[in-house]
Amino acid sequence: MMERVALIGGGVIGGGWAARLLLNGVSVCLYDPAPKASQHMHDVLQNAERAYAKLGIAIVPATFSVATSVAEAVADAKWIIESAPENIKTKRKIYAEIEDTAPETAVIASSTSGLRPSDLQADMQRPERLLVAHPFNPVYLLPLVEVVNGARTAPAVIDRAMAFYSALGMYPLRVKKEIDAFIADRLLEAVWREGLWLVHDDVATTQDIDDAIRYGFGLRWAQMGLFETYRLAGGEAGMRHFLQQFGPSLRWPWTKLMDVPPLDEVLIEKIVAQSDAQSGEYSIRDLERRRDDNLIAILQALKANQWGAGKTLAAWEKQRRQKLDDNSTEPLLTLSRRVPAHWADMNGHMNESRYLECFSDATEALMRHIGADDDYIASGYSYFTAETHLCHLQETVIDECIVVHTQVLGAADKKLHLFHQLKDENGNTLATGEHFLIHVNLQTRRACPPLPSVRAAADLLAQAHAALPNPPDIGRAIKSI
Amino acid sequence: MMERVALIGGGVIGGGWAARLLLNGVSVCLYDPAPKASQHMHDVLQNAERAYAKLGIAIVPATFSVATSVAEAVADAKWIIESAPENIKTKRKIYAEIEDTAPETAVIASSTSGLRPSDLQADMQRPERLLVAHPFNPVYLLPLVEVVNGARTAPAVIDRAMAFYSALGMYPLRVKKEIDAFIADRLLEAVWREGLWLVHDDVATTQDIDDAIRYGFGLRWAQMGLFETYRLAGGEAGMRHFLQQFGPSLRWPWTKLMDVPPLDEVLIEKIVAQSDAQSGEYSIRDLERRRDDNLIAILQALKANQWGAGKTLAAWEKQRRQKLDDNSTEPLLTLSRRVPAHWADMNGHMNESRYLECFSDATEALMRHIGADDDYIASGYSYFTAETHLCHLQETVIDECIVVHTQVLGAADKKLHLFHQLKDENGNTLATGEHFLIHVNLQTRRACPPLPSVRAAADLLAQAHAALPNPPDIGRAIKSI
Repeated sequence: MMERVALIGGGVIGGGWAARLLLNGVSVCLYDPAPKASQHMHDVLQNAERAYAKLGIAIVPATFSVATSVAEAVADAKWIIESAPENIKTKRKIYAEIEDTAPETAVIASSTSGLRPSDLQADMQRPERLLVAHPFNPVYLLPLVEVVNGARTAPAVIDRAMAFYSALGMYPLRVKKEIDAFIADRLLEAVWREGLWLVHDDVATTQDIDDAIRYGFGLRWAQMGLFETYRLAGGEAGMRHFLQQFGPSLRWPWTKLMDVPPLDEVLIEKIVAQSDAQSGEYSIRDLERRRDDNLIAILQALKANQWGAGKTLAAWEKQRRQKLDDNSTEPLLTLSRRVPAHWADMNGHMNESRYLECFSDATEALMRHIGADDDYIASGYSYFTAETHLCHLQETVIDECIVVHTQVLGAADKKLHLFHQLKDENGNTLATGEHFLIHVNLQTRRACPPLPSVRAAADLLAQAHAALPNPPDIGRAIKSI
Repeated sequence: MMERVALIGGGVIGGGWAARLLLNGVSVCLYDPAPKASQHMHDVLQNAERAYAKLGIAIVPATFSVATSVAEAVADAKWIIESAPENIKTKRKIYAEIEDTAPETAVIASSTSGLRPSDLQADMQRPERLLVAHPFNPVYLLPLVEVVNGARTAPAVIDRAMAFYSALGMYPLRVKKEIDAFIADRLLEAVWREGLWLVHDDVATTQDIDDAIRYGFGLRWAQMGLFETYRLAGGEAGMRHFLQQFGPSLRWPWTKLMDVPPLDEVLIEKIVAQSDAQSGEYSIRDLERRRDDNLIAILQALKANQWGAGKTLAAWEKQRRQKLDDNSTEPLLTLSRRVPAHWADMNGHMNESRYLECFSDATEALMRHIGADDDYIASGYSYFTAETHLCHLQETVIDECIVVHTQVLGAADKKLHLFHQLKDENGNTLATGEHFLIHVNLQTRRACPPLPSVRAAADLLAQAHAALPNPPDIGRAIKSI
């Protein structure tokens, strides 16, 4: 990963880049002439920290600094992200300033959503180091980044970019042919035009259009795009059938796409009023958080299905996963997270099943720590939980930061005895979980001793933890009433 | 709900309607002249049953019959859904046949995705009963249905339609002004045209376009549409700022939307080949199931956040929720579901936390049964789980149909002692859960006796279940090793 990235421009996109970089452990130096840039950056970072906590992505600390000029920001930078306004003259001027100061090998990545890299690099001394890397709002959550080379961009720079954005948990999409607005924004532009016409002609309000999207094809598009979805619409006969069936309608006089609606004061006023009626009950900040909560939930849902953006998330999590800090004289810190809103139940607090979800995740972290990880499972061995006893001591509320500390009460041959304590930020124990696990052979699904390395690691922990005081309430049973 | 619906046409859309109707307890009589219609219907129904089981929607039995003519299908029908090919002459002919036989008050709903209801009803004797109700594939999962009146449609018919589709768990969107292709397909048509150009011009493959959607704006559109998303892109300054900033780009010469690409054999061949490269590793059936799994996961994610399509799902579930069958001499059947794929863990079987999720859901069903439901909670009282003991007896595998039987071991004042048994289809017990609950006052968050009605219901169950044999393993504790 890069040591330090220079950001030129800290608006909605630049702020999103800063958040993604900083929370992935990459230090950032920002230059933005706008007086509110720092406050805005702070707001975006707050949203992003909240989102990563809910997403369960481990945040790596990094430093943020502010420069008073482009020159100051890019001195010593190896990677420079330009998110200035969409004006080619402004951008070219910035590139000239960068080239005056920055190391010759520094890569310059423009966040432009429309301008061609060949045009951007036209006046550069070292055009081979410029590319377009176009992200999507919110940059700290959406994985897509379109990577586009200009005529003079060096292939090695593109390779570096693909690796750089992957390491940030993103999905770099290599756009192979340079056109204005690349791929996604071409599609968005088409919908935007049609949407404006529908509002202009009083066919639909902004709310109607949004509902037509989010209750219908928007749900499809979070996981399969246009073509894969239509492949299915063709049924068993597939794509060819679909094209033959629906192709002719392209020539029907349905659309007004051949023209653009006049975006005059009347239409702007209409859209603003309809949008206020639709979304005005939420502040922008509140709406951002609802959007983030929904994106997080959707990404997690797709992760569980190992599909699309969920696969990208799983790879990112794995990459960010930290080793447990094992000082042997304390219970291990096996989990640390913020309670997401969707963990609430009818009673408005964290549902009972989520306690076991936390303890299950904590057990998994411990398993990895002693070497009973994915590779070990692939080799045919694992631990199964046989018995569990949970005590609920206090309520756990939404948005609370919780941790789990895990003590190994005993390890002997194929048996493992664990005790988890779920605590709040102040160290109060909210719940405990006592667990009895058995080591199994995954072929026979029967109990067997662990392989030597895992057995040694489990024994070592059990010996170290033997010096700890016995936790309260072990060996409890529920009494009849 | 309607007693019987006549379906004319059983293709991708008609089949989807049949599945949604049947699984919601509405009997269906189908007429489709295609020889493969019955087989196709069977396949769609199988997908839909699987999807509803995973979604957790209670399936209500209904009867499916096949007619050999339009006349036979619509005799005695109160609601008729026409999903014939998109040819106005074909459709008008069908309406004439319907009007010859069907009851005069029967509503005729066309699934057309493009034709105007005023044109469809032009030759009808009783045009007031025709409307368009345009659904989206897969009809059994996606909530959107566009409800459009023609010039002569009776307002009362539209009202009936809005209620009819809501009762099926859908989100009926009232399209107030009749245009060709309504709202969603206007937007889709725009994207489709632009997508065809991108493929035609070798800017992107079908895979590139799909990835540009599903890793980026598609994730946004599953929860917020075009306008609400752009409201956020404008930052604190909101919609007006966004429009002023991005409006001018509408006049940039980006797009080829003013023309349509020639959908000739060359372009068809290119798309088919790219689509095969992209999705060919999956059969259509497999791809449909992956799509359904993803849609289910996304819908459940949005339900947890009480947002958009998730809110519609929550309302549907509530409406379909069945009363527990209480014969007092047996443990109650409190849960019945199929294990979804995303419940698997590293070991490839149902994760331990999902056992408690099942038991928690079973407890919630029992709570509703004794009157400790949402209204009771709103009145300020509830039960909290204080202690839980789980025994894992056998592994639970993905796609297994599982049930939970619940026995009330004791109820005394503010205490409740429950025992859940999770079983497979053959009655084998896979796991048990013993739970100790305390009744609380939600104001003080302290223990207190239940209100008389809940107390009486809990006592009654405890007395009835006292005659049952004591389940094995109650009062167990984990032993030290």
